[in-house]
Amino acid sequence: MNSIRSLSAMAAWSRRLHREGVTIGFVPTMGALHAGHRALIRAARLACDAVVVSIFVNPTQFGPREDLAKYPRQLRLDRALCRAEAVDVIFAPENHSMYPPGNQTIVMVPQVARRWEGEARPHHFQGVATVVTKLLCLVQPDVSWFGQKDYQQAALVRQLMKDLNLPGQMMIYPTVREADGLALSSRNVYLSPVHRLAAPVLYRALQAGAAAVRAGERRGAEIRRCMIRVIKREPSATLDYVAVCDHLTLEPIARIERKALLLGALQIGGVRLIDNMLVQVHG
Amino acid sequence: MNSIRSLSAMAAWSRRLHREGVTIGFVPTMGALHAGHRALIRAARLACDAVVVSIFVNPTQFGPREDLAKYPRQLRLDRALCRAEAVDVIFAPENHSMYPPGNQTIVMVPQVARRWEGEARPHHFQGVATVVTKLLCLVQPDVSWFGQKDYQQAALVRQLMKDLNLPGQMMIYPTVREADGLALSSRNVYLSPVHRLAAPVLYRALQAGAAAVRAGERRGAEIRRCMIRVIKREPSATLDYVAVCDHLTLEPIARIERKALLLGALQIGGVRLIDNMLVQVHG
Repeated sequence: MNSIRSLSAMAAWSRRLHREGVTIGFVPTMGALHAGHRALIRAARLACDAVVVSIFVNPTQFGPREDLAKYPRQLRLDRALCRAEAVDVIFAPENHSMYPPGNQTIVMVPQVARRWEGEARPHHFQGVATVVTKLLCLVQPDVSWFGQKDYQQAALVRQLMKDLNLPGQMMIYPTVREADGLALSSRNVYLSPVHRLAAPVLYRALQAGAAAVRAGERRGAEIRRCMIRVIKREPSATLDYVAVCDHLTLEPIARIERKALLLGALQIGGVRLIDNMLVQVHG
Repeated sequence: MNSIRSLSAMAAWSRRLHREGVTIGFVPTMGALHAGHRALIRAARLACDAVVVSIFVNPTQFGPREDLAKYPRQLRLDRALCRAEAVDVIFAPENHSMYPPGNQTIVMVPQVARRWEGEARPHHFQGVATVVTKLLCLVQPDVSWFGQKDYQQAALVRQLMKDLNLPGQMMIYPTVREADGLALSSRNVYLSPVHRLAAPVLYRALQAGAAAVRAGERRGAEIRRCMIRVIKREPSATLDYVAVCDHLTLEPIARIERKALLLGALQIGGVRLIDNMLVQVHG
């Protein structure tokens, strides 16, 4: 397994492989890899000749009062997981080469970024859009994988790649969950044992919303109420938002016609959790 | 010569050539090609195996009261010039494929874009930065050429390409001028015969500034005064700005230490002209 830190070495590696007709699969991450990342890597491994995993805790997508400093960093463990999954390249650039002095360019996807996480975390998505543009230009993948757990991020990247004609195809991989339904996230390590037990409440709320849809409910407001009711029963949870949205634009919808996205965020013991679920109406 | 309109066909052409080890030179234009563009194309022809010229009058870089509708369009003449210069591909995409419904991504280079043309033409440079990002991602050139006449645009693209790790190298080609010094521009066709005669005043002003520097003047304010004095003598000219700037950041400088950029813009008969000149201090 190759470990690349320099931007120009990364670009040169990709150019060389493309010249040889090799296809490149790409999984961008902030490290602290878990079984969710592993599923993305395996999907890339199956679809492409070579697999690149980037590990970069991108400072520009963290707000000033967020967890940049304490975000879990475990490069040695990450390396072991990548080696076990036959990753070809770990691309782990330094902050100062990704953002040298004088750098100033910003990429924005204003409509997709407007609500939900964009409201809760100002500037978060412009940090994401900018770093993803940089990474895709450097790695030049044929296919990139993103996790459905960060649904709004994936929707934003999809729009970004289309709008800027960024290289390659984009795939969204279904959320990987713990046995009790909690969506895997690098931030789950922040949960105390008691809060870890309470954390699946968000998944259960989404399930309650999906059950209401299956039972025939089409009204967005009613489905939201079902989800909120579940969360309200968990005293350690503070609701941030739950929503019934269009799965492409992420705008709230009053009535489900065919497909919709149930979306939620809450805090438990100071840890912010997000999750989502796609629902479909038949007939 | 190949004429490509579809974005995916353009990307596929580049991918195929890169796979064969062919280098691609790129000259992005808005058409209405003149001897300035011809010089860029020849430079690309000399340096690369294959040459792509894009012709796209980018609507997002025009302000609401600017000349988008009347901007000169002459695809047949442009084609003839490109054929004569042995261009391999003319890439002339349609508006609706460059900006399909729902597109929303914006690229900004805020510091380089802040002054001068950025002040005179709000949103102009975010239109430029966005379309250049798209074109470079589609064409994937090894080297791209930009004209020095649009110095701030070239400085912005240089910063943009560095910041987003956009593909290829970037070259700035010296301004091509008429015999009387007027910088070639597609917009010169807007000038009436009388105003055409007056138009070289901007070049003469820059020359006066450069002469002052050669004569030992180092103070930005004094050099500006020299340039303004020349422009004031031409009654049909309305000064927009003249400036003595750092050649990388385009911030005004009080004193020339080594290298500086003399920059100017004025209106003659409703036509806006821009020009610039690099000056160097020895010893």
